[in-house]
Amino acid sequence: MNSNEHQAPARRRFLNTAAAAGLAGAGLVACSDKPATATAAAKASAPALANPGEHASVHLKPGELDTYYGLWSGGHTGDMRVLGLPSGREITRIPCFVPDALVGWGITNESKKIMGQKADGSLKYTVADSHHVHASYKDGNYDGRYAWINDKINSRIARIRLDYFVCDKITELPNVQGFHGIFPDKRDPVDPAINHTTRVFCGAEFQVPLTAGDLDKHDKYRSLFTCVDAESMQVRWQVLIDGNCDLTATSYDGKLAATNQYNVEGGVKYEDMMSAERDACLFFNVARIEAAVKAGQFKTIGDSKVPVVDGTRDANKDPKTALTAYVSVPKNPHGVNASPDGKYFICAGKLSPTATVIDLAKVLAWFDGKLEKIDQSIAAEVELGLGPLHTAFDGRGNAYTTLFLDSQVVKWNVDAAIKFAAGDKNAKYVVDRLDVQYQPGHLNASQSETKAADGKWLAVGCKFAKDRFLPAGPLHPENEQMIDISGDKMVLMADHPVRGEPHDFIIFKRELLKPKPVYALDEFPNAIKDPKETGVFRQGRKVTVKMTSQAPAFSLREFRVKKGDEVTLILTNLDKVQDLTHGFAIPKYNVNFIVNPQETASVTFIADKPGVYWAYCTHFCHALHLEMRSRMVVEA
Amino acid sequence: MNSNEHQAPARRRFLNTAAAAGLAGAGLVACSDKPATATAAAKASAPALANPGEHASVHLKPGELDTYYGLWSGGHTGDMRVLGLPSGREITRIPCFVPDALVGWGITNESKKIMGQKADGSLKYTVADSHHVHASYKDGNYDGRYAWINDKINSRIARIRLDYFVCDKITELPNVQGFHGIFPDKRDPVDPAINHTTRVFCGAEFQVPLTAGDLDKHDKYRSLFTCVDAESMQVRWQVLIDGNCDLTATSYDGKLAATNQYNVEGGVKYEDMMSAERDACLFFNVARIEAAVKAGQFKTIGDSKVPVVDGTRDANKDPKTALTAYVSVPKNPHGVNASPDGKYFICAGKLSPTATVIDLAKVLAWFDGKLEKIDQSIAAEVELGLGPLHTAFDGRGNAYTTLFLDSQVVKWNVDAAIKFAAGDKNAKYVVDRLDVQYQPGHLNASQSETKAADGKWLAVGCKFAKDRFLPAGPLHPENEQMIDISGDKMVLMADHPVRGEPHDFIIFKRELLKPKPVYALDEFPNAIKDPKETGVFRQGRKVTVKMTSQAPAFSLREFRVKKGDEVTLILTNLDKVQDLTHGFAIPKYNVNFIVNPQETASVTFIADKPGVYWAYCTHFCHALHLEMRSRMVVEA
Repeated sequence: MNSNEHQAPARRRFLNTAAAAGLAGAGLVACSDKPATATAAAKASAPALANPGEHASVHLKPGELDTYYGLWSGGHTGDMRVLGLPSGREITRIPCFVPDALVGWGITNESKKIMGQKADGSLKYTVADSHHVHASYKDGNYDGRYAWINDKINSRIARIRLDYFVCDKITELPNVQGFHGIFPDKRDPVDPAINHTTRVFCGAEFQVPLTAGDLDKHDKYRSLFTCVDAESMQVRWQVLIDGNCDLTATSYDGKLAATNQYNVEGGVKYEDMMSAERDACLFFNVARIEAAVKAGQFKTIGDSKVPVVDGTRDANKDPKTALTAYVSVPKNPHGVNASPDGKYFICAGKLSPTATVIDLAKVLAWFDGKLEKIDQSIAAEVELGLGPLHTAFDGRGNAYTTLFLDSQVVKWNVDAAIKFAAGDKNAKYVVDRLDVQYQPGHLNASQSETKAADGKWLAVGCKFAKDRFLPAGPLHPENEQMIDISGDKMVLMADHPVRGEPHDFIIFKRELLKPKPVYALDEFPNAIKDPKETGVFRQGRKVTVKMTSQAPAFSLREFRVKKGDEVTLILTNLDKVQDLTHGFAIPKYNVNFIVNPQETASVTFIADKPGVYWAYCTHFCHALHLEMRSRMVVEA
Repeated sequence: MNSNEHQAPARRRFLNTAAAAGLAGAGLVACSDKPATATAAAKASAPALANPGEHASVHLKPGELDTYYGLWSGGHTGDMRVLGLPSGREITRIPCFVPDALVGWGITNESKKIMGQKADGSLKYTVADSHHVHASYKDGNYDGRYAWINDKINSRIARIRLDYFVCDKITELPNVQGFHGIFPDKRDPVDPAINHTTRVFCGAEFQVPLTAGDLDKHDKYRSLFTCVDAESMQVRWQVLIDGNCDLTATSYDGKLAATNQYNVEGGVKYEDMMSAERDACLFFNVARIEAAVKAGQFKTIGDSKVPVVDGTRDANKDPKTALTAYVSVPKNPHGVNASPDGKYFICAGKLSPTATVIDLAKVLAWFDGKLEKIDQSIAAEVELGLGPLHTAFDGRGNAYTTLFLDSQVVKWNVDAAIKFAAGDKNAKYVVDRLDVQYQPGHLNASQSETKAADGKWLAVGCKFAKDRFLPAGPLHPENEQMIDISGDKMVLMADHPVRGEPHDFIIFKRELLKPKPVYALDEFPNAIKDPKETGVFRQGRKVTVKMTSQAPAFSLREFRVKKGDEVTLILTNLDKVQDLTHGFAIPKYNVNFIVNPQETASVTFIADKPGVYWAYCTHFCHALHLEMRSRMVVEA
């Protein structure tokens, strides 16, 4: 019997109690302005189950394929993870911001160019903190072209091609720190013919001085909201704002983007950051911003040439010309999510036990001068429980919100919540509650962030796992839980440990992707298309080694270079069979990378150590895999 | 319907046919010297099932704990992976040879020291290729102290502490290339009081010139077998051998270590490497080698001070004084495994369809001068199928061998095989065959490599997965399959995709480990034990920043340094709650690492960029996690 199994209740009690006590001490738990009756109404009703649910198994038979893809952010590993669902099995990890010694990401010349290099050719960064993954849209559903992922540490955005499942571009955002929220648009705000993603919006969390002289002028610290072009990956424009950005959401009509703000105070200590009772959800009028940029109504900051428009409160008081609108939301909200019916953005309260439902038609009405006060766009602000963070949807009118402090998922009906907020105290908006294990952050439902939300599966990313898996030292995995939401009651189906720390993820039907299992040689300009082209080609001290692989041999059984040569080795895998990947490692030279079928990759190194080095295939390929080598002779 | 689902049969047919055709072309398939009757005998008999098996589920309920640990080699990610079994869930990955941006492995001063640095403080290596994981023994079973893992690319051995699940020492082996096989001893060969692991044996695959002048003298290329001290991790001695080393095994009495050899020819091209019909399993008489070292009967090579004894064939012809014994084994064997009854080592044939059973008592008899020819220790050499690679055991007298080319696991009875080899052609040694998906390399059974082999579960590492999971581009996962071996018939229970490319693994009962969930402050000499000790301490241009973390705050809300300072930041996590890990990232400064409860870590960097940098907690810890920051001000 494992000794850890008995500790669950104690741990849970401690975390909840201690955290709540800490919050209460700072005056946070009592910040709800709802009357006491809300609590009664918030209790789950227990009607007869109109829909008992499908109860599909999360456990597949050997060889049985999953029916959904999950794209998961990799957290500190700086990659994007691809899961099969409902099984929760990790199929691959796509390196983006951080080197990956399997693929040779950060080792090959091709990947280093994408990742970004210093003047000496070394990598600019080797750490990252990726939080959010979102994919490109067409007609309100994923179109299988791209996914994007953020790096919060160094404010980078990476794009992943969803045909080959590789990162093909990375852009570092100027003028900002703490790039966190990210969301592609879903169609163009002006041109109805463009019904697919062309922009990606990026929110920056940390307010920083924009000029060198303002290091200690906290009131000059600012954050910006950034728009990146989906195709070129160039930054199109930025918006200077009051407060900061956290998560990001976009409307289905393409007209609005938004970010929740938890630090409108501009505090530099956490007590200051939560001094105000209400923060905001900040809306951006995309068409107006682009018109302003086009009209030259922008400035630039420092060395950056990116147009920056003014989205501060003072500059946007007139709805008719405003680029931005600040909807007030209770204390330090976390998360803003678009409902699949296109009507609402929902902000979760974090330090307030509430969710705020914002009516997008009314936000647009305000921009049109047809709504007196922007806060009149708030359709509901209802109590859900302690520490609400993120919200998912089932396409049947229900929302699912994580409660960090309560360690619960609460299922609630949006229309009922609006009725309740409108005064109908008999409207029972909370449909169900389910304990999760433990302290959930993000959650997402199958197809939740599309018009095709199907209400089958809900995944919950629990930040603490403590007693749910075999103990393996002080660093615990996180616990990603799978919940069946096909019926009225949520049913917890499985726990999956994952390496820290994925944050956010999307789940969609497998039919939406058409991955390519084998590369095309022409994808690589430097491909060696015929073994006859292989050899060692010298130009002074620069040597190019051209090589191909076909199991069980490299085209060059040996290659000779001289000490001090700058060697560029180009390897094309001419094997065409799916899954027949080769690796190439050179001992002591810190070289290892793979070439998938029909792929080409190259490395450059200085041959500074004389001797014999057995370059060998590192990816199992054939019965003679161990014998598949090429002997590098470095002559003194 | 996914288009890939239909391709399985075609793929499998191709791979087997193509691979077999390739081998046949090189004259390999026909290398069996067994009569045709062997094939008939090798067919599985179909008796009534005396033991129908337990059929335990591999699918656990949420919160249910696994009953076995699996320690998996991480392949090119250079880590050790910890799995829970039978569920196959990955609980953690322990970085060893390759940086890990979550933990800060390769970022913190502490980890860089373990990994090995160049003169400028940068890491010596950032790639690896780890194949084999084995753990320390006591009384013939695992004792939960250590595990060891190899890096084939740079010939390094890493030790993992199994209390905290961290790598604490790495040693680079001198004089060798392609360090592959690794196995700890199980007791001392001389002192019966030492019934636990004190040595780790390491086999080197690639034969290399040992002096600079011999680059092109292939007959001077040599490989060495290495013994590393389990506690100090220093190299104790090496043995110069003929041929090369592949996998490694040790006897339960501590007297013998062995390695299979696939290149006794010393070939430098694969055709040469398989020119001989028989290679070898090379035995080492540990006590005699240590006596020779003690007696000064060794030389050293180059700059290395490691004693090297002579284990070549010519120097070891007299059994009475021999340090080594070369048992012949058919063509290019792969894998040598010790049966749990302590009697046999089994070599799989790879390019021969056979397994060779070697009787250890007879090997010892040869060393004692009581056996005329060393090959008389071969108890059986029986046909199993195409491409046999590795063998596991159930503790009931049965062996399980992977057949790479046949994509099968064959279950066979060792005693029956010995009877068959002795002439009893009615002895049905093949008990069962099971197709696996596809091309299996290593396999291992629960407790297989201990005296406590329990015959419950068999995991098989299939190198190809192609159609078994949702497609995710050209790089496929591998397919680790779980098989129930509790009954007479093997039953395939589940497929698990894993990132390439784990090779080998061990599986043992969870009771054998006693992990510690929280560190002791005293493990870290530089721990900041009280927030009052925190601050910025300057000595010229060297600045030490001492900081602690306690959710939701760092002890320093800001710290100021000057441009050009060499900053060493020391962070102690004073939180004591299990699973309450904090992270620490500094934007643009390439710093990210974690501190688990009561852990201390440090980083050193040059403050070369003036400005405000929001160092923030990267590991979700508290409702105010996003607000948990420390502001680094770098004054120009």
